[in-house]
Amino acid sequence: MKHLISPLDLSVTELDEILTLAEEIIEEPKKYSNVCNGKKIATLFYEPSTRTRLSFEAAMLNLGGSVLGFSSADSSSASKGESVADTIRVISSYADICAMRHPKEGAPQVAANYSSIPVINAGDGGHNHPTQTLTDLLTIKNLKGRLDTLTVGFCGDLKFGRTVHSLINALVRYENINFVLISPEELKIPDYLRKEVIEENHIPYKEVKVLDQVMPELDILYMTRVQKERFFNEEDYIRLKDSFILDGKKMELAKEDMLVMHPLPRVNEIATEVDKDKRAVYFKQAEYGVYVRMALIMKLLEVAGC
Amino acid sequence: MKHLISPLDLSVTELDEILTLAEEIIEEPKKYSNVCNGKKIATLFYEPSTRTRLSFEAAMLNLGGSVLGFSSADSSSASKGESVADTIRVISSYADICAMRHPKEGAPQVAANYSSIPVINAGDGGHNHPTQTLTDLLTIKNLKGRLDTLTVGFCGDLKFGRTVHSLINALVRYENINFVLISPEELKIPDYLRKEVIEENHIPYKEVKVLDQVMPELDILYMTRVQKERFFNEEDYIRLKDSFILDGKKMELAKEDMLVMHPLPRVNEIATEVDKDKRAVYFKQAEYGVYVRMALIMKLLEVAGC
Amino acid sequence: MKHLISPLDLSVTELDEILTLAEEIIEEPKKYSNVCNGKKIATLFYEPSTRTRLSFEAAMLNLGGSVLGFSSADSSSASKGESVADTIRVISSYADICAMRHPKEGAPQVAANYSSIPVINAGDGGHNHPTQTLTDLLTIKNLKGRLDTLTVGFCGDLKFGRTVHSLINALVRYENINFVLISPEELKIPDYLRKEVIEENHIPYKEVKVLDQVMPELDILYMTRVQKERFFNEEDYIRLKDSFILDGKKMELAKEDMLVMHPLPRVNEIATEVDKDKRAVYFKQAEYGVYVRMALIMKLLEVAGC
Repeated sequence: MKHLISPLDLSVTELDEILTLAEEIIEEPKKYSNVCNGKKIATLFYEPSTRTRLSFEAAMLNLGGSVLGFSSADSSSASKGESVADTIRVISSYADICAMRHPKEGAPQVAANYSSIPVINAGDGGHNHPTQTLTDLLTIKNLKGRLDTLTVGFCGDLKFGRTVHSLINALVRYENINFVLISPEELKIPDYLRKEVIEENHIPYKEVKVLDQVMPELDILYMTRVQKERFFNEEDYIRLKDSFILDGKKMELAKEDMLVMHPLPRVNEIATEVDKDKRAVYFKQAEYGVYVRMALIMKLLEVAGC
Repeated sequence: MKHLISPLDLSVTELDEILTLAEEIIEEPKKYSNVCNGKKIATLFYEPSTRTRLSFEAAMLNLGGSVLGFSSADSSSASKGESVADTIRVISSYADICAMRHPKEGAPQVAANYSSIPVINAGDGGHNHPTQTLTDLLTIKNLKGRLDTLTVGFCGDLKFGRTVHSLINALVRYENINFVLISPEELKIPDYLRKEVIEENHIPYKEVKVLDQVMPELDILYMTRVQKERFFNEEDYIRLKDSFILDGKKMELAKEDMLVMHPLPRVNEIATEVDKDKRAVYFKQAEYGVYVRMALIMKLLEVAGC
Repeated sequence: MKHLISPLDLSVTELDEILTLAEEIIEEPKKYSNVCNGKKIATLFYEPSTRTRLSFEAAMLNLGGSVLGFSSADSSSASKGESVADTIRVISSYADICAMRHPKEGAPQVAANYSSIPVINAGDGGHNHPTQTLTDLLTIKNLKGRLDTLTVGFCGDLKFGRTVHSLINALVRYENINFVLISPEELKIPDYLRKEVIEENHIPYKEVKVLDQVMPELDILYMTRVQKERFFNEEDYIRLKDSFILDGKKMELAKEDMLVMHPLPRVNEIATEVDKDKRAVYFKQAEYGVYVRMALIMKLLEVAGC
């Protein structure tokens, strides 16, 4: 494990190691506060993403390391026509590890090919965003105590939502998983994912168009944003969106220990009244994102004792 | 004291504690160079302000802490429609304290309502900018040795200048203060401030239109920028602006121990010839800004020994 | 030595001291990992330059110091009309040393005039970029073992390339240097440089229009970008550019221990097939840039033991 480009780069064993280390960090964060002294992470963000960038930076600072980088392509050498391959070879002299977000799919893989330091894909276009998937898995593992034997509902835009695709890909590797796919017709999960991933792995699933009716079955409800611009017309959007908005009334139908997750940012797909419900863990999820990135950085840097 | 949103959030006692701690830091800065080891400040600047942002960052670094954040809204999640309430709940997982500048009045107060870490208002629109007020008070206290028994002149744009309004609000709480308000008719202080703050507190004051004549009376001259765009027409601006420009000739009329202050940036309202005058303390003021922010961060984080 | 504005600010002796210290750092980097504890560098970049900015930041972090600053003029007080003189006086309260890049020639010199902390010119328009020159000299010294007795070829845009001009200015101070100047007619080195620097110092040189024929003579080949927009017309550009592109075939003509250097970013003037050639040291050059900036920061801050 030298780089992390796709969530599937990690075997289940490697993934478990990262999640276990993250849980040890949660237990005793101070123990790790100097393990990366003298180490630097470069955050190379060719498109802005405050949440993800700051999460990486917080992770490295928590480990006693330091940070350099850029937060948009304007202030990078890309505007002078430099290739990603050249940039990463230079950055390899400046930092010990890097997190790259890029609007073009595959750019972090190209960087990894030329890099002499570990490269973490922090999101490449609509493609991969593996540390979000690690975050989601840690949230489930730490709060439910397991990654198997779960009925997981995905609600909203299942067609374009890369976090949903990645998490489905990751969960099919565990035992006794059920999926409930809740979306309007227009935003159903892509055929390849349904056929080659879910069906191929013999995962029981169903596709529904209304959230209410399936609420009682779910152990996890993973919400995503339904973007207006995905719809052909305004009427469809208005007619459909309410079916995919989570509110207090729908929460009454759910199990007492169900978890509501969301990759954030949330716009209006979860009513703010839900925030106070103890089952709403989407802000806690952001916190898990820091811990899991700490564990990942330690693993990739091969810090002693991890 | 959990957050600092308005300068008036602080009682005179709390204010004195911060100023006293700041003066102790000035005396022996090395003593404080590790008190925030392992702590992080998030600088959330939804509009750019280099001076204020860097002052907060320098303060935290001087205390041995570290920094993460963003310097403009473009590179924040705001562009994806996230609310300030959601952003701060996520940032609460990333940092131990935050400084927020926002173009909308009240945004830092909203943040404070949802935050689990202390929020410092680093300027919200034309509204509040409490750390500038703390800076001004520390400058006066440290250089004059007192905050009472002072004749304080405010010159320039007294209508829109929020630093002036805040400092007036803060000074009326001390004994034996006099104000001299020097501005063109168009830029006099707002009625509510004159009536509800100055007169209500029985503070002697006068309003004048020419700087020269009042120079000999002043212990402090607080200069502000007269922005061309505040005037109805070019002629008025040209006719009036010279009355409000401080130069070496006007300085000859002032007391030997008067202080010239300015929140900066200065454009042309203070002639550069004044810079060498030992009474010109506006650059020193920027230095006090770092010390007072160090003290404030320590107080809000409840660092031991403060 | 208080500031570094032009490469010629440094005497040969001072330059040697910096290069010697840089080589000591290369030998034993850990020895220097805490020498700047508690020190801060301000990176004031009024125009973006990721490579240079990150190189300074990496250098300071490697020394145990910390970083604050801005990466473009948008997020600086310049947009409010503040002069460089005022900005640097404020920054002097925030940091212990600063690196400034500015689109206007002479801006860093103005800053130095008003600064109470050391100012390093990190590039001012087409004028100076002294730390690039230090980087180039360290690369040559460390890899060739000497700065004298060298035949140095410069290829490409010799008219506008400031790194070329600076390196020529620096090398004429050493013994037994030869220059080979390879460029199209339109992009020959300026007359003043040829007459007042090269000829004045009795440096043997020749000007040629084709790279191939001189390859066997060179100890160093310093490549630069030939920018399309420098040419009067498209045909000239297409006709000429290939003569100045370095590829594997041309490399076959070169000495076994020749070094290919480039200030980067590279666009297409060096074919990527050359990257694997051990004589291609342009990425290593970026690494030397960090070491030489570490040495420079130590010298300017007068860190003990340097």
